[in-house]
Amino acid sequence: MMARALTGQKKNDSKASMNDAPAIRPATPADDDALWAILQPVFRAGETYPIPRDISRAEALAYWRSPGHAVFVAVVEDAVVGTYYLRANNRGGGGHVANCGFMTAGHVSGRGVATSMCHHSLAEARRRGFSAMQFNFVIASNHRAVRLWQACGFSIVGTLPGAFKHPAQGAVDAYVMYRML
Amino acid sequence: MMARALTGQKKNDSKASMNDAPAIRPATPADDDALWAILQPVFRAGETYPIPRDISRAEALAYWRSPGHAVFVAVVEDAVVGTYYLRANNRGGGGHVANCGFMTAGHVSGRGVATSMCHHSLAEARRRGFSAMQFNFVIASNHRAVRLWQACGFSIVGTLPGAFKHPAQGAVDAYVMYRML
Repeated sequence: MMARALTGQKKNDSKASMNDAPAIRPATPADDDALWAILQPVFRAGETYPIPRDISRAEALAYWRSPGHAVFVAVVEDAVVGTYYLRANNRGGGGHVANCGFMTAGHVSGRGVATSMCHHSLAEARRRGFSAMQFNFVIASNHRAVRLWQACGFSIVGTLPGAFKHPAQGAVDAYVMYRML
Repeated sequence: MMARALTGQKKNDSKASMNDAPAIRPATPADDDALWAILQPVFRAGETYPIPRDISRAEALAYWRSPGHAVFVAVVEDAVVGTYYLRANNRGGGGHVANCGFMTAGHVSGRGVATSMCHHSLAEARRRGFSAMQFNFVIASNHRAVRLWQACGFSIVGTLPGAFKHPAQGAVDAYVMYRML
């Protein structure tokens, strides 16, 4: 892969070719199948996003690609293995706070894809002029995500008691997490 | 007014006719002018909602009447003096938590209209099967609102540092407030 990268036949994958960290680039319409392959099992599981478990492909893609969302994909060895969106969490006097949603393919769990995307999102948010980032609804039972966002500099600034009905665990808290940029 | 109410010529205003508390009813398209008369000065002031201060009438009404919002108006002596919307704050596993936005006309400030609307919204949310209510962005400098929601049973469950740029006070915190139903 390094040789191909050096010949210029591939873009954005020099990092991936060296250490398996993902290359991150804006999503294109051609990524829709890959996005749905990531979104579908996560939404169907219903354990981490407050989204109907039976959401359709079209509605899920419309949600992820909502107006005002900048959508990115993380690519390893030509495969899309993660995605995130970046948007303003509010408008007007609240327009300086960004919000993101992240999702990774199950088979790359634990390989740093989400961390790479988070770092990318923080830089991208700064570049767009945001001065803080807020996650509105991190489900407390999603321990891996909570730890990961804390490692990326986020603090739990709010706890929403019983705000999420987990399909296996019942009512669990959700956290509001926040960090300055 | 009592006489007219007793003859059945008017609905929902028996309370207003007795003690000046508002009658609260679903908004109709005919209320748009009255809604805008309430929304416009609040959005133009830019002190309490994270909405662009120069928002147009059409966009403001579309926001207040967003899909999924049930909109109500508070009426005193045939005049609309307040409005609120009620919606689900999230979907899927988060669909049991309601969210509301409230606004009152400046000239009735301090007369209990917001409190009446809040009590109405809590009953209406329970009636619709919600089991909690969350306010996502109560601006800390809006002391009257914070006290009012606390008096209505809400607790501050999160603080978003500097999440709102107040036109006069600069960066101020916003609170997440929550109560069970």
